[in-house]
Amino acid sequence: MSRLVGMKMSKYVLGFDFGTLSCRGVLIDLADGSLKATAEHSYKDGVIAGTMKHKRISLEKEWFLQNPDDWVESMSIVSKTMIREAGISPEDVIGVGTDFTSCTLLPVKKDGTPLCKLEKFRDIPNAWPKLWKHHGAQRYAEQIEEYAKEKTTWLKEYFGNSVSSEWVYPKILQVVKEAPEVYREADYFMEAVDYIVMLLTGENTRNKGILGVNAFWVEGKGYPDRAFARALDTMMEDVAETKLSGRIVTVGDSAGHVTLKMSRLLGITTKAVVAAGHSDGAVAGCGAGVIKSGSMMLVMGTSTCHQMMYRKFHSFDGVCSVAADGMVPGLYGYESGQPATGDIFSWFAENCVPKTYEERAKEEGKSILEFLGGMAEKLYPGESGLVALDWFNGNRSILSNYNLSGMVVGLTLESRPEEIYRALVEANIFGSRRILENYESHGVIISDIYAVGGIAGKSPWIMQMCADVFQSDIIVPLFENVPARGAAVCAAVAAGSEYSEQGCKNFEEASERLIPKERIIYHPNMEKAEAYDKVYACYRKLHDAFGRDDSFMKYLKELRKGKKRHE
Amino acid sequence: MSRLVGMKMSKYVLGFDFGTLSCRGVLIDLADGSLKATAEHSYKDGVIAGTMKHKRISLEKEWFLQNPDDWVESMSIVSKTMIREAGISPEDVIGVGTDFTSCTLLPVKKDGTPLCKLEKFRDIPNAWPKLWKHHGAQRYAEQIEEYAKEKTTWLKEYFGNSVSSEWVYPKILQVVKEAPEVYREADYFMEAVDYIVMLLTGENTRNKGILGVNAFWVEGKGYPDRAFARALDTMMEDVAETKLSGRIVTVGDSAGHVTLKMSRLLGITTKAVVAAGHSDGAVAGCGAGVIKSGSMMLVMGTSTCHQMMYRKFHSFDGVCSVAADGMVPGLYGYESGQPATGDIFSWFAENCVPKTYEERAKEEGKSILEFLGGMAEKLYPGESGLVALDWFNGNRSILSNYNLSGMVVGLTLESRPEEIYRALVEANIFGSRRILENYESHGVIISDIYAVGGIAGKSPWIMQMCADVFQSDIIVPLFENVPARGAAVCAAVAAGSEYSEQGCKNFEEASERLIPKERIIYHPNMEKAEAYDKVYACYRKLHDAFGRDDSFMKYLKELRKGKKRHE
Repeated sequence: MSRLVGMKMSKYVLGFDFGTLSCRGVLIDLADGSLKATAEHSYKDGVIAGTMKHKRISLEKEWFLQNPDDWVESMSIVSKTMIREAGISPEDVIGVGTDFTSCTLLPVKKDGTPLCKLEKFRDIPNAWPKLWKHHGAQRYAEQIEEYAKEKTTWLKEYFGNSVSSEWVYPKILQVVKEAPEVYREADYFMEAVDYIVMLLTGENTRNKGILGVNAFWVEGKGYPDRAFARALDTMMEDVAETKLSGRIVTVGDSAGHVTLKMSRLLGITTKAVVAAGHSDGAVAGCGAGVIKSGSMMLVMGTSTCHQMMYRKFHSFDGVCSVAADGMVPGLYGYESGQPATGDIFSWFAENCVPKTYEERAKEEGKSILEFLGGMAEKLYPGESGLVALDWFNGNRSILSNYNLSGMVVGLTLESRPEEIYRALVEANIFGSRRILENYESHGVIISDIYAVGGIAGKSPWIMQMCADVFQSDIIVPLFENVPARGAAVCAAVAAGSEYSEQGCKNFEEASERLIPKERIIYHPNMEKAEAYDKVYACYRKLHDAFGRDDSFMKYLKELRKGKKRHE
Repeated sequence: MSRLVGMKMSKYVLGFDFGTLSCRGVLIDLADGSLKATAEHSYKDGVIAGTMKHKRISLEKEWFLQNPDDWVESMSIVSKTMIREAGISPEDVIGVGTDFTSCTLLPVKKDGTPLCKLEKFRDIPNAWPKLWKHHGAQRYAEQIEEYAKEKTTWLKEYFGNSVSSEWVYPKILQVVKEAPEVYREADYFMEAVDYIVMLLTGENTRNKGILGVNAFWVEGKGYPDRAFARALDTMMEDVAETKLSGRIVTVGDSAGHVTLKMSRLLGITTKAVVAAGHSDGAVAGCGAGVIKSGSMMLVMGTSTCHQMMYRKFHSFDGVCSVAADGMVPGLYGYESGQPATGDIFSWFAENCVPKTYEERAKEEGKSILEFLGGMAEKLYPGESGLVALDWFNGNRSILSNYNLSGMVVGLTLESRPEEIYRALVEANIFGSRRILENYESHGVIISDIYAVGGIAGKSPWIMQMCADVFQSDIIVPLFENVPARGAAVCAAVAAGSEYSEQGCKNFEEASERLIPKERIIYHPNMEKAEAYDKVYACYRKLHDAFGRDDSFMKYLKELRKGKKRHE
């Protein structure tokens, strides 16, 4: 009987992590933090590139779109699956949290209808959500950067003095220039996560932690002024007050309650409080229980995102953004990153590994990267005589330059695939070290280094290399679904504002109650650390020679563009 | 009847080309230049590396030896096979010519017995012939170079101001230092081709064209003086007058007649005149009918050798050697080279091409390099955005630096294997262009460019690239066995000194009579030439940045050596 009562009293939160290809969810018991269910569902249209799915409309090379229906459908399936599997009562869900790839941006009507769902805009690619990695707005980004560098102080102070084509303003300016009718008809341009929260609650809120990363929004100052917007395009003059307006919320805030319509889609009730949305990179701290000032979190997957929490504000080059409450309330969130990590390793596996290796890997029942990693791990730092630059997708931090490209130096007739692979892995970790050093040299002192993401969990030898190269312990949480758990933590805190007993009163409590403590710590091997220092010195030389002055690689990139003339 | 008489009057020459792995021969009719027979026989012991063949004696990494018995056996088999196949009478062979890899060096007794054939020296690797690519004498080369740079003028004037570990003096100094008893007991140190001529004639002759490349020998001055030799090692003081002595001959000279013993081994008679030996690189001009001042010949195979004939002597950096009568009598032979060409492409095919490509190549019935070449050929210059340095085996010309290594710059996640392959091919041709430019900028004016060797014959798209990059016609002779034909031309000229009617009076006549005229000419595409100029500009920047100051790559190489400590 008491067991039944106990069960009856349990309350739950849902966390939804909207990634590039799918939505993953977790259902967590607020009483003991136990994970009751997880589910995942892939987006039907996935990433829309090359041609539109609904009609043969060609997209340019750097275009990447998504279908907003996919998000809602996936969320619905994931939610209902979890509720069913956990066998809980729908009314016991008291909080819903979300995180999303960012900056993924879409134009919507006031009622939440995406413009791409309107008959008249369906065939206009600019009416569709532009995925984070859509780089079609590159020239608009350059235009904005040029102007902002000259005319503003905030670009340098808060946004690393450069404008990513992935951000809000370039993506909007592209719509203005290429499809002004879409711009005109849009009531709002929404970050995808704010859009999901808008769907869930019926209310337009904006998470300031994300605005502070992507939308030139600064605490106490807001968006750039009308003069700035007008300079980009007169049509945009009032963009801040109109199409980017909304109630400013912060991580852990309640954004409202789930609407009746959405509660049916999710298989829950309107009791559930909806937390302010988060970005999939910045939510990792919440999801791993890392919420203290001085914590550096490496999210290592296809790319690497460096998330740093710090109590003080410092402005310096080589950081993509510094946002108040960027990851957790009360701390500045510093963000840096490397735009390709696992992507480089996959590229190598697909393009540069001979048949004999593939066959041996198969015999041993390993993936190619596991097989290569097994051999690469045994090499001593420097013994290959190779050093690489990890700029295969440009450099985000600390150079912020997408004209840069990768290189491998030291090749001989004796160079082996595993040696080249190792050089690429080393280069990536050297790139991280450069970022870490940049923080410390500007007064942002790193106390602890955490690593999460696919590589952190699956490649112990790479984590050991991180420890050796950084000359620091590396803490790797030993559980999965970190982002979705982070969304659930946000839900628990938001729910606490209403359900003070079952919810959590702050992130410290939510972290303590909801996040597992299992972790592995990699300690540096100091002999190897010294050997790595020598190779790192070579990396630094290449980094500075080709990075500080980008003319060489920029020229190569221009040669590449020149091919169009001959196609 | 008249036909029978005609046949009876024909006389023939034999040309033997001693390569790294086999001896190839041609039998040519002096009357009409027709090729009557060819044959090839591989050396039984091939290249001796790793361990000796006759006994488990380990060899260090850079050691490469050969067994002199293999040379004689192969020559005998090749000769007898050709005589038999051509169905000619042994006494109608009136000339024998040879060329050999160079500098391949061995210690011998006065009677022609190699020291390695003596019981007491058999187990001493230093008593064996050291193949051209034996680099075990590297530190002796450095020692000699350091001294010669400081104390002599001839190193700079005639030998490119650097000492290759492949040359005569480093190879001898290695014997002196590591096996003094071998040095003491050797009556002569012989270039392999001079050794073969010594066997054939019973007489010690030395081809000055080779001495002028490998042995610090200068026309009118001879070998370095006693002070120089003593400085290397007191034991060596009289090396020039003793162990390097012999009658100086030049290409096309008669070195004597075939001895009775050797005539039996070859299946011919003592009537045959033996031509002065030639080196396998330098003989290509004779073999292709290229004997005019201003002719540049690229011998493109595993490596590339640049052979330039010019009437005037110029001394400048970036040439390996300038030898009087180096290729044909009366012209200076300038030699430069790239130590890896086909070797790099093979390295790429073996190490960097994915399974899918191998399978598609197989389906199409192509080798991997043919398959890759087919795709690479279709790319436009620069469109890959990649540029490489071709220093996978160091740089011979114009930098003369084996601390240098290869690199690939401009890599992105979109880089394809065929693009990287093409960048490596381009780099190699850019390296050649750098060499050609260096000649012209020092007054050695190139009138015609010829290409021979495996790549010239098999890869039309690479030849077209040469034409486009050099902005010059490239002439490729359309027949095989160029080196062996060159040896036969030498034989015809040497025979002419005795058999004035059937032999040839000079190289012009021999070339006209013996060398086919079939050739293909690649003309530059000037639009592509302009596009290549842009990529070449990138190559030049890397070349100068990493080549003029070698500290970066030298450091990488040292890191590589450091691995031994950890093995």
